[in-house]
Amino acid sequence: MNVLVLGAGQLARMMALAGAPLNIVISAYDVNTDTIVHPLTLQKLGTGLANAIAEAQVITAEFEHIPLSILEQCQQSGKFLPGSEAIQAGADRRLEKALLARCGVASARYKVIENEADFKQAVSELGLPLIFKSALAGYDGKGQWRLKDAAKASSVWQKMADFLAEDNKQAIVAEQFIGFNREISLVGVRASSGEINVYPLTENHHVNGVLSVSLARPVDAQLQLQAEQMFAAIANYLNYVGVLAIEFFDVDGTLLVNEIAPRVHNSGHWTQQGADVCQFANHLRAVAGIPLGNTELLRPTLMVNILGEDSVPNAILGIPGLHLHWYGKQKRPGRKMGHINLSASSLAELKARFARLIDLLPPAAFPELEQMLGRVSD
Amino acid sequence: MNVLVLGAGQLARMMALAGAPLNIVISAYDVNTDTIVHPLTLQKLGTGLANAIAEAQVITAEFEHIPLSILEQCQQSGKFLPGSEAIQAGADRRLEKALLARCGVASARYKVIENEADFKQAVSELGLPLIFKSALAGYDGKGQWRLKDAAKASSVWQKMADFLAEDNKQAIVAEQFIGFNREISLVGVRASSGEINVYPLTENHHVNGVLSVSLARPVDAQLQLQAEQMFAAIANYLNYVGVLAIEFFDVDGTLLVNEIAPRVHNSGHWTQQGADVCQFANHLRAVAGIPLGNTELLRPTLMVNILGEDSVPNAILGIPGLHLHWYGKQKRPGRKMGHINLSASSLAELKARFARLIDLLPPAAFPELEQMLGRVSD
Repeated sequence: MNVLVLGAGQLARMMALAGAPLNIVISAYDVNTDTIVHPLTLQKLGTGLANAIAEAQVITAEFEHIPLSILEQCQQSGKFLPGSEAIQAGADRRLEKALLARCGVASARYKVIENEADFKQAVSELGLPLIFKSALAGYDGKGQWRLKDAAKASSVWQKMADFLAEDNKQAIVAEQFIGFNREISLVGVRASSGEINVYPLTENHHVNGVLSVSLARPVDAQLQLQAEQMFAAIANYLNYVGVLAIEFFDVDGTLLVNEIAPRVHNSGHWTQQGADVCQFANHLRAVAGIPLGNTELLRPTLMVNILGEDSVPNAILGIPGLHLHWYGKQKRPGRKMGHINLSASSLAELKARFARLIDLLPPAAFPELEQMLGRVSD
Repeated sequence: MNVLVLGAGQLARMMALAGAPLNIVISAYDVNTDTIVHPLTLQKLGTGLANAIAEAQVITAEFEHIPLSILEQCQQSGKFLPGSEAIQAGADRRLEKALLARCGVASARYKVIENEADFKQAVSELGLPLIFKSALAGYDGKGQWRLKDAAKASSVWQKMADFLAEDNKQAIVAEQFIGFNREISLVGVRASSGEINVYPLTENHHVNGVLSVSLARPVDAQLQLQAEQMFAAIANYLNYVGVLAIEFFDVDGTLLVNEIAPRVHNSGHWTQQGADVCQFANHLRAVAGIPLGNTELLRPTLMVNILGEDSVPNAILGIPGLHLHWYGKQKRPGRKMGHINLSASSLAELKARFARLIDLLPPAAFPELEQMLGRVSD
């Protein structure tokens, strides 16, 4: 089976690696260059979206910030999974918040801001502190503002006004600031039959708005159930097919949805070693219409992102249960270059291995890892 | 790092899949067509062994039946691992038996036969029954003869004489027939430092001389130790770097070496799901000079070869712990097209899953699977 992926980055690459054993051949459409490439070799295979669509049995996406005209052309082919509505909801914070509300899923109270009047109303209705997020293209911490002190309202508004003036398609979503204990996420997969398999909740640590570490371990059953119910509400509403990720705030044991990603997700990379069937294979199983794979925790596993570095000390490969996953990319500051998965048969063993890893990694390139070390326990 | 693999079949393909996350880029040299290809896409990358060698940092092989001129050219480059001596020993039964003898490793008594006098001497020295194997290109059950009854000696000799007359490089190795209880194999890896990691012994079932099923489960420590000592004797003698496989006959708890394979091996495919680091990744770690990965049993796992078929019922993917590995090849009778790995957290669970699998697979294409079902127990 030929599957076309919109986007030619590391997620398409890892789908290609997971698809090959299933005889699923992945080609990737680079929306920036209008070329079709092999996502592993980057060999150019052709040009033009129409050709890409014609040669695919199924179309899916590795990211959500895709021009509407491309989404529509894919949708019209009848081959697009999870489909345009889900992808757009992941790309536009307005649609996302509206979707969550329609699905009856708890998330921070919000208001869409297009002008100063909206801004003032948001402040008075929602109260401070507030967090403001650009509606479009605002992932990994870009396009965010905070307001804690009413005295700074006009200066914060001015920054946002400048931002809005640059792009008339943009808006800003104001949200009540959530004082959360932890950021956690759920990655799961839904088949066209409606069958849903979810991985265990993952605990995440971000640095400057970018995911640094994810930890998957045996989870609290009550929390897992909450997350699964929210996952089912959203996925069923969208008649979703494929892998869907949901990021939550854990507020004293109650989950609020932060955002959704209609695709395989960085916080699910640990599944390559920590689950029987990884998120990439399960996404392909779902969109290809073959039975979903097991999503239970195989062993405690954590993932560390490699940002802006194209090498790590070889010695880390001497730690048992450690796997490197490079993306074959050119080095750029802050760029997601690869990740490390670290597994063990117990949390105590995982903690000891993580301590060894932290000792071997350069702290400047891998900041704040110690903050997660203490959480690797029962 | 660029690694060149001699041979462009499924083993090179699986090395490419295992190498990509390590930023090890595999190209494959097809010795039959003198072309360099990408082993996954089969995209043609170039022509000529000299070019292939020039662009590689390391050269290795996925099979042993390689013309001597090619082996010598690779050896002269100084990049070839495990190197020409090991590859030749795997390709020529005379060299292999001599190697085993030099390493003090137990194997069936033998005699090289080039003419009728040799044949008669083998019969009188070694006694009947005898098994005769062609010295060159005799894997997967081809080029073998048996003699149980002295009355049939001349007719068996005539077949072998015809065979020898066709190729003056050939010889036949006569071996005492071993009445074994089981065929088992050991796959392990040796680093240039001399460090050795071996996987647990695998029990194998062959049909018509071709591997059908391999089973990896917790093993008898005494048997494992015997096998490891033989592995170390051979690998250290050859100053071997990479994965080496050894097939044994288990004769009432005493191991005799049947043959060696100086490469990743079909009886090690289970490591993709049953071990933390699979044989393909460990071979690449060894030849690339990075630390070896853990070879302990992660969970009981068995492998079933898919021979001559390019599809299996999708329903088998509904069995938890089941993974399909297709090789992307055109269908031909008897051809190795892919394999199934099946894992579980206990042998009892594995047995139940294997029974489900046997029920779903067409018995004509997967004969004798029941014979292994009874062995999936403590």
